Amino acid sequence: MSSSARRGDGGTVGPGTPFRVGLLGHGTVGGAFSALLLERADEIERFNGRRPVVTGVLTRTRGSFEEILADADLLVELIGGIEPAREYLLTAMRAGRHVVTANKQLLSQHGEELFETAREHDVRLRFEAAVAGAVPVVRVLEESLAATPIDSVHGIVNGTTNFILTEMAHGSSYPEALAEAQRRGFAEADPSDDVSGRDAAAKMAILARLAFGTPVHLEDVRYEGIEHLHVDDMEYARELGLGLKLIGTAERRGGGLSVRVHPTFLYAGHPLASVSGPFNAVTVESGTITEITMSGPGAGGPGTASAVLGDVVSVMTGGARPPAPPLPLPLVEDVESAFYLHLDVADRPGVLATVTQVLGEHDVSIKSVVQRGMGESARLVMVSHPVIESSMRRAVQRLGEFDFIRSTPRTIRVIEEEFV
Amino acid sequence: MSSSARRGDGGTVGPGTPFRVGLLGHGTVGGAFSALLLERADEIERFNGRRPVVTGVLTRTRGSFEEILADADLLVELIGGIEPAREYLLTAMRAGRHVVTANKQLLSQHGEELFETAREHDVRLRFEAAVAGAVPVVRVLEESLAATPIDSVHGIVNGTTNFILTEMAHGSSYPEALAEAQRRGFAEADPSDDVSGRDAAAKMAILARLAFGTPVHLEDVRYEGIEHLHVDDMEYARELGLGLKLIGTAERRGGGLSVRVHPTFLYAGHPLASVSGPFNAVTVESGTITEITMSGPGAGGPGTASAVLGDVVSVMTGGARPPAPPLPLPLVEDVESAFYLHLDVADRPGVLATVTQVLGEHDVSIKSVVQRGMGESARLVMVSHPVIESSMRRAVQRLGEFDFIRSTPRTIRVIEEEFV
Repeated sequence: MSSSARRGDGGTVGPGTPFRVGLLGHGTVGGAFSALLLERADEIERFNGRRPVVTGVLTRTRGSFEEILADADLLVELIGGIEPAREYLLTAMRAGRHVVTANKQLLSQHGEELFETAREHDVRLRFEAAVAGAVPVVRVLEESLAATPIDSVHGIVNGTTNFILTEMAHGSSYPEALAEAQRRGFAEADPSDDVSGRDAAAKMAILARLAFGTPVHLEDVRYEGIEHLHVDDMEYARELGLGLKLIGTAERRGGGLSVRVHPTFLYAGHPLASVSGPFNAVTVESGTITEITMSGPGAGGPGTASAVLGDVVSVMTGGARPPAPPLPLPLVEDVESAFYLHLDVADRPGVLATVTQVLGEHDVSIKSVVQRGMGESARLVMVSHPVIESSMRRAVQRLGEFDFIRSTPRTIRVIEEEFV
Repeated sequence: MSSSARRGDGGTVGPGTPFRVGLLGHGTVGGAFSALLLERADEIERFNGRRPVVTGVLTRTRGSFEEILADADLLVELIGGIEPAREYLLTAMRAGRHVVTANKQLLSQHGEELFETAREHDVRLRFEAAVAGAVPVVRVLEESLAATPIDSVHGIVNGTTNFILTEMAHGSSYPEALAEAQRRGFAEADPSDDVSGRDAAAKMAILARLAFGTPVHLEDVRYEGIEHLHVDDMEYARELGLGLKLIGTAERRGGGLSVRVHPTFLYAGHPLASVSGPFNAVTVESGTITEITMSGPGAGGPGTASAVLGDVVSVMTGGARPPAPPLPLPLVEDVESAFYLHLDVADRPGVLATVTQVLGEHDVSIKSVVQRGMGESARLVMVSHPVIESSMRRAVQRLGEFDFIRSTPRTIRVIEEEFV
């Protein structure tokens, strides 16, 4: 390519003109992206007529944002966090540059501002890598399913917690599983963003916006993490045919939208039940298409880099409009769910009868029970039919007042649909 | 919308101008497509600024192709078969019209001619529904993975046979399972295109073109069907931890490309092993992304209609170039594979020793064996390590010459990678 094409943004654009990419951030993903771009440049040029070239790199210690901007058709933002990433992206779009980002924090907190800026300046804003690594769920929701009325999105969108839960399903305790995840590079030294469910909540806010057109801020998403899960819950649940995952949900409920993340039991037939290890998967349900599931490795150097480069190529081919202006639905909080309920009770006559009576008074009806004697006490493990969450909470609170209850009752939600 | 916009192709195009869709064929999918388009037109207009409108329908008994063409921005072809579908699509593209088709026969036999015509006249040619119903594998290969060097594509791309195999896994015979598939509308009265593997072969030819850039004609794809499978093979295999699927494969092998369809045993951890009933699924493997799997319902009215409408919307948003000019790789036929081998033998001393010796002489090494006495005879069921196909064929031929072999040996390929 000629060196003159690297200067400014003048000159004619067409086959043969390099497509200039400015890169903000050069950590693991940035490095993998640069390498992959070099490796694939010939193939991309063959397909598109233009060759993508990295024309500038901004790190903490070198590079000038203004110079990189001046010399780029598109900026790739891999800095993370809110500022200065937000300011860089807004400035770039206002200057007529396309942008690609993997920044889930930013999109889940300032998404509408970014989308509006992209629409206003008629530039592309792509963010496939922000949600599920190389699994192309953003594009499929934005484009393939643009014509499909979606009922729900369920996702395993955090590989760290899915790895930990997979280890726990094989008998590890939570601390053991976390340590193993850290040893293998699947969890950070401070894993709180992952294990608290907050990372998954940010991703579900983004998916909810794409699937339903409703702006959802990270702070609107209720989330629970996996830190307080017991291995014995997983063992009892297995007897009931259930496996435990950290599931993000966005679904139409009672005229509104419910978006949440929490540990969830799934029956073996559910398409997310067989997703193991540091993988991500998303199931989209619709009356029209039944369901589509996409799965693959979660965030990580090469997979994320591949998603970012896919976004760059999609901008080069001219597709991919930003999401349409929002169409808000009310967010609903108190939704119906089936529940797993674990009770540690004194092993004496009449206890099961009392428990089922209290549950019945709160509209909780029981689908299956496992009772196991443990000497003086017993474990009662149940799965309910769907019940409104606040009813279940009140029932559990009432149960906690009886003296035959030996420790705090534990509840975990269950997705009770059984699939083909 | 104004009625003048329905006339000819003059006038200014922009927000408010209807996007005119001509529909060729109005059977199950065509009817579902018309209904879905009406239902989603508001939402699509909100997103794109233009409203899609069906401006003409061609059936066997009514409508004129020329008039429909004159009054359309895009033609949707749902006639099926080669002619007149091919001629209609070529004529439409030469007249500058975009086209969307679900026609796998046509694409797998005349794909290059269609792609070249689309490139030459700079129109869009979309065909998501041709491969896996509503599962967006075409778009993901064409766009999301455009930047990814792909190693292999494995797919369950025929829902009819997957339903039949699922029934057989539950103990039905092949004729019983086929009858049930027909009763439930998953198989046609003449199921030969499905059960022979030919339908899957057409789809794999299309996927191979997208994944590897190599033109693959339907007649280049070796395929075997499911008509000759025995329920007892499935039972023995289950003891070895294997499930049976009709798998289409397209993969780089020895500097070339191997594209084939045959019954295949999978270990339980394989992402395609848990795909049951009339579903489709495709796994794409790459060193860069490890693997991505997409699954969902196979071809059928609403799912296919949803994929077709998704294609129409993708044309409206301006993305989706036709595949680049081909980059041929040699097609290779004799590839390595692990094998399941079923032998019906006389139960006498020395038989197992002779069998393993003959196999060894042909470079077939055995990974696991199940032997079961049945009175005078015995079943020997084995899984081999990977071996070149022609070696296995010669070994089986040699075994067939011994008088202790009671019936023709049966072999089925095994995908032996074990996944996370």
